[in-house]
Amino acid sequence: MAETAYDPGNIFAKILRGEIPSHRVYEDDAVVAFMDVMPQGPGHTLVLPKAPSRNLLDADPATLGPLFAIVQKVALAVKKAFDADGVTIIQFNEPASGQTVYHLHVHVIPRFDGIPLKPHTGQMERPEVLVENAGKIRTALSN
Amino acid sequence: MAETAYDPGNIFAKILRGEIPSHRVYEDDAVVAFMDVMPQGPGHTLVLPKAPSRNLLDADPATLGPLFAIVQKVALAVKKAFDADGVTIIQFNEPASGQTVYHLHVHVIPRFDGIPLKPHTGQMERPEVLVENAGKIRTALSN
Repeated sequence: MAETAYDPGNIFAKILRGEIPSHRVYEDDAVVAFMDVMPQGPGHTLVLPKAPSRNLLDADPATLGPLFAIVQKVALAVKKAFDADGVTIIQFNEPASGQTVYHLHVHVIPRFDGIPLKPHTGQMERPEVLVENAGKIRTALSN
Repeated sequence: MAETAYDPGNIFAKILRGEIPSHRVYEDDAVVAFMDVMPQGPGHTLVLPKAPSRNLLDADPATLGPLFAIVQKVALAVKKAFDADGVTIIQFNEPASGQTVYHLHVHVIPRFDGIPLKPHTGQMERPEVLVENAGKIRTALSN
């Protein structure tokens, strides 16, 4: 199905194993959400299934319901946390689509009237900003 | 949750009720898929739950598993049907995000190396092209 087998050395697999840090906003048995370190806008969050798949094309269909239930929760939380006007959901499959890390992940991006998205894989955000934004999202998720 | 109540007069609700035509590639009890008439690339398909919601923000979470299982099937089918290099999945919520029709829908767009997406809500595709592309996708879905 996928172009290439799943590589357990990808950076999101390392984050899931706790080998490298992330600014987590949500975690359960099946799904993790953390801040994108190169956000396309403030509050840009990634939602991942823990189950390994390269992208949506080779994912176990059983993982999708729990995954997108959390995508919805995170979308509502980022909209509230940043008083956003809208939310864009994007999921890239393979390099032609813009995928750069090969563990299935869903982008949840707060949107504001008249403000275009910054480029995908643009500039690294300062850690203190990510810490503050993750806190806002965790608060919105818990209310 | 949503900005505004669901409007049953939206164009996708009319398509779901059969009041206006569409080039359907898939239908079951809960989900419908048809060709975007202003495609961002060849084979651009929309996947919708039949259950009414304005967008992801006010959707019944129970609709999301069946919806994204079909998004996955359609993604695999369009990749095969158009020999695409990748697939982009996009879902817009509210005007700030680019949403223009207010019934939850997921964009499934075949991608090709080096070819950018055309603009969202760009030019109308010729009906004969949509008919041909829908046929290719239906064939890929049935194999």
